[in-house]
Formats: sequence, structure tokens, C-alpha cells
Amino acid sequence: MASQPLLLLILDLTGTFAFAINGALTAIRATRLDIVGVVTLGMITGLGGGTIRDVFLNALPPATFVDWRYLLTAACGGLLAFGLSSVLDRLSTPILVLDAVGLSVFAVLGASKAIGLDFGYAQAMIVGTITACGGGTLRDLLILRIPTVLRSELYAIPALVAAAITAVLIHFDAYGIGTSLCAAAVCFLIRMIGVRYDLNAPEPPRRREHG
Amino acid sequence: MASQPLLLLILDLTGTFAFAINGALTAIRATRLDIVGVVTLGMITGLGGGTIRDVFLNALPPATFVDWRYLLTAACGGLLAFGLSSVLDRLSTPILVLDAVGLSVFAVLGASKAIGLDFGYAQAMIVGTITACGGGTLRDLLILRIPTVLRSELYAIPALVAAAITAVLIHFDAYGIGTSLCAAAVCFLIRMIGVRYDLNAPEPPRRREHG
Amino acid sequence: MASQPLLLLILDLTGTFAFAINGALTAIRATRLDIVGVVTLGMITGLGGGTIRDVFLNALPPATFVDWRYLLTAACGGLLAFGLSSVLDRLSTPILVLDAVGLSVFAVLGASKAIGLDFGYAQAMIVGTITACGGGTLRDLLILRIPTVLRSELYAIPALVAAAITAVLIHFDAYGIGTSLCAAAVCFLIRMIGVRYDLNAPEPPRRREHG
Repeated sequence: MASQPLLLLILDLTGTFAFAINGALTAIRATRLDIVGVVTLGMITGLGGGTIRDVFLNALPPATFVDWRYLLTAACGGLLAFGLSSVLDRLSTPILVLDAVGLSVFAVLGASKAIGLDFGYAQAMIVGTITACGGGTLRDLLILRIPTVLRSELYAIPALVAAAITAVLIHFDAYGIGTSLCAAAVCFLIRMIGVRYDLNAPEPPRRREHG
Repeated sequence: MASQPLLLLILDLTGTFAFAINGALTAIRATRLDIVGVVTLGMITGLGGGTIRDVFLNALPPATFVDWRYLLTAACGGLLAFGLSSVLDRLSTPILVLDAVGLSVFAVLGASKAIGLDFGYAQAMIVGTITACGGGTLRDLLILRIPTVLRSELYAIPALVAAAITAVLIHFDAYGIGTSLCAAAVCFLIRMIGVRYDLNAPEPPRRREHG
Repeated sequence: MASQPLLLLILDLTGTFAFAINGALTAIRATRLDIVGVVTLGMITGLGGGTIRDVFLNALPPATFVDWRYLLTAACGGLLAFGLSSVLDRLSTPILVLDAVGLSVFAVLGASKAIGLDFGYAQAMIVGTITACGGGTLRDLLILRIPTVLRSELYAIPALVAAAITAVLIHFDAYGIGTSLCAAAVCFLIRMIGVRYDLNAPEPPRRREHG
């Protein structure tokens, strides 16, 4: 973590911050919580994906738990959302964009951490996707929503694509700051196109509603 | 894992496959999910029990995550259920039988892994049961159902019995392929009898409904 | 664990027992479960906080899982609640008091374990709070309730205070049996005052109901 390039660290913290704000706002909208609940859900959304990642990679204690910069960033995101929820509600587009930044960065860094720890490419793709989607899934569970990532929208798929590109880049020894940003940009673009045109992943054949 | 006898490996993969199909079908029936959700729930149902097991046994990274055969088997189960859900819906009996195979094998192998890692018998019984029931519990949580294992049917109890028999067998140095299959068979039989006669575990005294 | 003073061990087991009874009773009240479900939820409530703590502290396998005294205490609590639910329902005040004992002891011991393993003070405060609140959170999730700790009452805040006092005590080399009991007593008092006067943590600004 220490040797992580500054740019990636900044993007990673940006993603954590955006996830924390987004998670806290989602929680405020969905149900009545007190300040403990709002900040907790913000922190879980921001840090949960990395925590699950580190369980799967046997990299405990979780990096985002040990590093106070992540804790502080996530806590600030949650507190900000608590204090300014009515203002932030009107900023949904910038928050959506920041959330897509988080999704992209988490997917790339998750996959690259897995390969750095000698896991296979399939594992790296799974872990990248879990890193990107895990925090939001935990948030949804805690407020009793079926995780949106399981139901609709292009959310897990762009993360999976970015994780796969990361694996390919590392395989061909072409993984660097520039190319990792490209992988993240692909994820970001797919996610943004999905939001703009309201695209969804395929669903199972519709079930007979009457009968 | 490498030295696991082929027969047990095949049974373990069969159980994983059955759990994945079962989990994905349950998810399709219970709520609207897209392909990401269906395959994810299939994989979580098939692999989740072993993952929780390995957290408790400090055997991270999870064996089912590292071994691509488990990942592939679970993913195929989920994809198959997604593609053929209307066909598979009509095959509920064979899937129920395969699910019981998974329950039995997971309970025995979970308990034996615990003892092989020098945990006590009580721990082995708990871990065997968790291995067998954990995947379905995670699946139910993600689709917002109170886990069926907590509510009704003989599901955890046959797993607990098989895990206990496994502990006894190992204690008396009588654990081998044949006897481990017997332990699994006992679990399978209890489970099947429970399904056939609709048996349930005892419930707490009924609460005054009027008052 | 072995060198833990007897008094703290007794308090820790008391807390585990109270949490297990409380968790099992909550589950019985909230929904229909069978004996497996009631005992499981009792054990998860009693042992879950310590399990999550040990994941974050990289202290797997979980101490409460390895130590049969905790397993037995939690299982007895769950079984007792199953058998005597109608009697225990009338004893809600003593159980609430015991639950507050558990909250206090878990917060102090969780924080002190974190610092003993060379984690920072922020981490110790978080882990102390997680140890105290984690079991109840898992219980609520499994019976599909939004965790009460996120919604209302002073529950996490007294735990956080006790964990912070513990960190301060250790920092000034003043942590001993007497002072740790004082830290726990502060948590206990805040919790009891909160229950008595029905205090809640602040909530986000109320949202326009019509609009």
C-alpha cells in the first residue's frame, strides 16, 4: 500500500469518499436511521468491498481498516452526508459520477492486488468485482433491500470488464499507471453509458404471471 | 485438497453444482434478478458454506475460491439455472435429491477438515453444519428471506448428525472413504425422510395469538 | 485468553450468556423459528461480535469459537431461552441489565485486545464497538430487521465511549482490572440512562413527508 502511486491512492480515496457519501445518502432515503446508522452505513459502503476482498485474499487485517486515511475518508463522507443530506440530494449527478469513479478504481485495484498476491486470473476478476460491488451490497443488506447489483443496471458487469482488462494487462506485462487508468476508464464509460441509457443486464425469461 | 480421494472430490463438486442450481432457481422464483444476480446467487449458494468454514478454521484463502474446479462448477450451475429455469423448475425432485447429496457431503467434509486442522469435536460439528447450511443461509439473506434453515424442515439437524458421526469415526480411527460415505448416507436419509414426511424441528411453545 | 483475569472472564461469559438469551428471545418474538433457529440466533448474538472482531484483528480462528466455554455458554443461553421463553419474557428488566453488562464488557475487552495486538487507537475504538454491537446486528439481519443499533437508542455510543476510555487508559499505562471495570461501568451507566429516559442518538433532518 505504501508504494502505491500517489495518483492511484487519490483515486482510491476519492472512490471511498464517493461510496461513503452515496451509501449514507441511500440509507437516509431508504429508512430512518440515527447518526450512528448513517455514518456506519457510509463507512461500510466505502470500506466493505476492500474488507471482503482481503478476506478472500487472506490479506487480513483489511488494508482499509489498518490505514487511517481510508477510515477518516469514509467517516468524513458519512458525516458529510448526515449533515448535508438535503443539499447533497440535489447533487445526485456528481455523486453518481464519483460513485462510478470508485467502482472503476476499486475493480482495477482489487484485481491487481489479487494477482500481486499470486492468485489466478479468474480469482482476480472475481475479487475485482467483489471489491467494487461488495460495499454497496452490504449497505443494501443492512437496510433490507435486495442488493441493486443483483437486480438491475450495469453495475457488476463494467467492474468485471475492468478487472478482466487488468488481468490481461498484467499477463502481458503492460500494467502501469497509464494502462490501469485506461482499464478504469473503460469501466467508467460502460457504467456511465448504462446510467444514461438505462441499460440493464439480461433477465431470466419472464415467468407466467397468471397460473 | 490435492490428496482428497477422487470419489469425495466428485461428490463435493456434485454438491456444489446442485447447491448452485438450487440457489439460482430459488432466487429466480423469489424475486426478479438479472443474469448477474442469478449467477452470483448460484455461486454464493454453492461456495458460501465452504468460505465461512475456512474463515472459522483460519484456512484462508477459501479452498473453494482458490480451486478453479469449484468456481467453474458453481458458475456453470448458476448459468444453467439462468438459461433453463423453466425446464429445471419441473425437475424439482432430482434437484432436491442432489441438494441433499451436497448437504451430506459438505457436512462430513467440513467436520473432517476441522479435525484435520486440530480443532476439537464440538468445533468440528459446528463447522460441518455451517459448511452444509451456510451457502443457503447467505442466499436467503441476499433475497431477503428469513433463512429456511432457521425456520423449518430437517435441514441443519441431519448435517449436525453427519458431522457428529464423522467426529466419532475419526476419534476411533475408523474414518475412511467407506465410513465417510456411511456418515453422509445417514444425513441423506434423514433429510430425505424429512422431506418425504414433511417433518420439522421442534418449535418454541406457541405464543398467545390473542392478547 | 488464558491469562485473562478470572473476573473479566466471568464478566465476558456473563455478557455472552445475556446476549445469547436476549438474541434468542428477540428471535422468538420477531418471527417463527424452530429450535435450530432459536439456538443458532442465540449463539450468533452471543458470539458474533467476537467473531467479526477477530476477522478485523487477523486473530482467526475466532477466540470464542475455539474456546468451548464460550460455545457452551452461548448454546446454554439459546437453549434456556427456547425452553423458558414465556418465563423469560417476564424478566425483561434483568435481561436488559445483563445485556448492558455484555455491551460494556465486550467494548472494553474488544478495544484492549486490538491494542494488545498493536493496532492503533482509532482501530481499537472501532473494534470495541463492533465487538459490542456485532452480534445483535447479525441477529437482526437474520430475522430481517434493520439493525436496531443503526436506528435508535443509545447502544453503539456507550460502547464507543467505553472503547475510547480503554484506549486512553492503555495510552497512559493505567489499564488494569479496576480501571477497565470503570470504563465498562461508564458504558453501562450511559446505556442504562438511555434506556430509562428513552434517549436516542441524533437523526438526520426530517424529510419533507409531503412533496
